[in-house]
Amino acid sequence: MKTVILIGALGKMGQAALTGLSKHKVITAGRSGNVDHLVDITNENSIRALYEKVGHFDAVVNTVGFCEYATFAEMTEAQWMTTVMSKMMGQINLVRIGQEYIADKGSFTLISGILNVKPIPCAIADATTSGAIDTFVKCVAYEMQRGTRINVVNPTVLTEAWDVYGDMMPGFEPVPSTLVGKAFERSVDGFINGEVLFVDA
Amino acid sequence: MKTVILIGALGKMGQAALTGLSKHKVITAGRSGNVDHLVDITNENSIRALYEKVGHFDAVVNTVGFCEYATFAEMTEAQWMTTVMSKMMGQINLVRIGQEYIADKGSFTLISGILNVKPIPCAIADATTSGAIDTFVKCVAYEMQRGTRINVVNPTVLTEAWDVYGDMMPGFEPVPSTLVGKAFERSVDGFINGEVLFVDA
Repeated sequence: MKTVILIGALGKMGQAALTGLSKHKVITAGRSGNVDHLVDITNENSIRALYEKVGHFDAVVNTVGFCEYATFAEMTEAQWMTTVMSKMMGQINLVRIGQEYIADKGSFTLISGILNVKPIPCAIADATTSGAIDTFVKCVAYEMQRGTRINVVNPTVLTEAWDVYGDMMPGFEPVPSTLVGKAFERSVDGFINGEVLFVDA
Repeated sequence: MKTVILIGALGKMGQAALTGLSKHKVITAGRSGNVDHLVDITNENSIRALYEKVGHFDAVVNTVGFCEYATFAEMTEAQWMTTVMSKMMGQINLVRIGQEYIADKGSFTLISGILNVKPIPCAIADATTSGAIDTFVKCVAYEMQRGTRINVVNPTVLTEAWDVYGDMMPGFEPVPSTLVGKAFERSVDGFINGEVLFVDA
């Protein structure tokens, strides 16, 4: 049994990840709500405080990254930066700071999203930062120390979120949360490193 | 003959691009030195001022994007952000603002770099932002308006820069500037859109 910090535990993607973490002691974290620890991944001090409070942990599973949606022509600099500082730099900082605290042979699992390989209107900032995170994981894997590993789950839309996102994703087939949960499980419990785990129908 | 704004004209990559732009009227730009216009791509006002001063143009070719180099363990938040705001957001802003000014059927050509697909030590921020730009170009191509196009040149190290970078890139084969120039030419003079033009031996 590993101690796993699950960030975004109350969200749909967090609940999907949770289905793959049933073997483990899961410490929940998120921006609000009934979680073990509050954390804002866009704030370095908040990230550090989370790790300090948890103490020993073997894995970090992040399922959050806020994105703004607009056409490229209309997307403002502020919308770009909000997305970059959450989905991209927030996740990089989870790893950058977390590497100081995580147990030997621990793992980080980040989240990207299928829109960087299957683009749709209004998702350019999401796609660009997902591409950044997929690349980051593939490249930084060679630098992980003390046997620690890193992977990223790149899912399509969840069946459980299809009522919200289905209209903007014509021709996409949603996948059940439990299948996405398996990708998180494969990252946390396997020996893979530097992989982008696509979960797409 | 097209009017092409070449940013970073005095650098080695700018000189490489120039070899592919001989048919055109090239307006040179850069942070310093003997160029037609000074521009700092990390500053939105500076980008807008460049476009305003040039007036009519058919193509933007960018060959600059500052990156900090350090191991992932040692790279600071400031080093990450310097890289993100230049190589990634600087280039995105060149397109975001430039789309308001560029002529119908014009083109943008950005620069990334081979380290996102061939990682080496100390280049994680370069690699991550190159991955972001490659993804951005592939996805935003579908949103370009008035027949405008966008591509990115992703070169390995230049033969002309091998004396500087060769030691940190064991097992890499440099390519001559003229070959990289052809990639820029293919982007500016072709009809391709949304392509990552790898130039690697």
